Amino acid sequence: MARTTITRLRTKASQDRSELDRLLDSVHIGHFALVAEDGQPVVLPTAIARDGDRMLAHGSTGSGWIRRLAAGAPASLAVTSLEALVVARSAFESSMRYRSAVIFGQCTPLTDPDEKLRALGTVVEALLPGRLAEVRHSTRKELAKTLVLALPITEWSLKVSDGWPDDPPEDCAGPAWAGVIPVQVRYRAPIPAPGLRAGIPVPESVRRIRGSSV
Amino acid sequence: MARTTITRLRTKASQDRSELDRLLDSVHIGHFALVAEDGQPVVLPTAIARDGDRMLAHGSTGSGWIRRLAAGAPASLAVTSLEALVVARSAFESSMRYRSAVIFGQCTPLTDPDEKLRALGTVVEALLPGRLAEVRHSTRKELAKTLVLALPITEWSLKVSDGWPDDPPEDCAGPAWAGVIPVQVRYRAPIPAPGLRAGIPVPESVRRIRGSSV
Repeated sequence: MARTTITRLRTKASQDRSELDRLLDSVHIGHFALVAEDGQPVVLPTAIARDGDRMLAHGSTGSGWIRRLAAGAPASLAVTSLEALVVARSAFESSMRYRSAVIFGQCTPLTDPDEKLRALGTVVEALLPGRLAEVRHSTRKELAKTLVLALPITEWSLKVSDGWPDDPPEDCAGPAWAGVIPVQVRYRAPIPAPGLRAGIPVPESVRRIRGSSV
Repeated sequence: MARTTITRLRTKASQDRSELDRLLDSVHIGHFALVAEDGQPVVLPTAIARDGDRMLAHGSTGSGWIRRLAAGAPASLAVTSLEALVVARSAFESSMRYRSAVIFGQCTPLTDPDEKLRALGTVVEALLPGRLAEVRHSTRKELAKTLVLALPITEWSLKVSDGWPDDPPEDCAGPAWAGVIPVQVRYRAPIPAPGLRAGIPVPESVRRIRGSSV
């Protein structure tokens, strides 16, 4: 039934690396899972940025979980984007469009100060393109307080759900509406910090991102 | 220094249950961490909904991870909301405003069909208020294919970062702009399913949610 093929909710596993990269580049918070010393599962939300074939994350040297990741604890990193509500004709078929990646592996801490500096710059640029050229770069002292982790993008899975409600024919013949409600994540107008000196204009990086989708 | 107190980036741990509930009610995807049989950490994104003092999640009986959670594997559930980019005057202080909760515990599978039915209705209503009255409810056969999990909200932590860039005085005296760029997640115009029968109007639940923030 060709029509069912076209209209049904499609959740597919993808092995398309460029599709993975699009997701990793469009989501700024990831969730690491790791196992604590006592065997309990821990989940850690953190800012992420892709740097070629690896994911970068960073945190304070004071964070025990970041230190545990840096020590090479086995980890999973989920990167998830909710794209739409799927409004089906039944409760059972109601669902979501999403993109969801999980990367498996172990993090490596970056130790070379120049490499740490570049990596933190990559994170700044991933969040707000153009910003790195506008700010003071990190000092050695600041770098020493920061753990920067790299997780290689080698073992990963990607699921993309981007179809339509998968209602059976008897529900399609009924009175209920069906469709999708797209979710949009976007930046609103910037708000200057309370202590900002007078006369400093909104910079180019912030002007460009305003109103755009994340 | 009172001014620093007002303007610095504030990340506070909160024990305010109503603040926790506001977060749990405004985010529709959570991330479960659990430990696989081989000791590896697993992270599982899934739709979530709060039902009083417990979180609900559901999945197919065909999902091994959902079955493992249902069997009582120790779990952590992260619920995270990115609220704004914090645009500081240095790379080091660049950060995010966010709300982040983690709930620790073990899931219990709901076994009573009536309780499962009510729980799935709660999930439908959490995603799209008013929808439950507009759709066909789940049949016993559909319920049998679905595992519904409940995680008690007893052991939890909540972090809220809602302040301003925490730049040191020497950076504040410099030329760089600082502020925040709020992130908005909102619903766009609904799109009818390709196979939708002619003459079915957009229902009240969908009309109401359009344009609103998630």
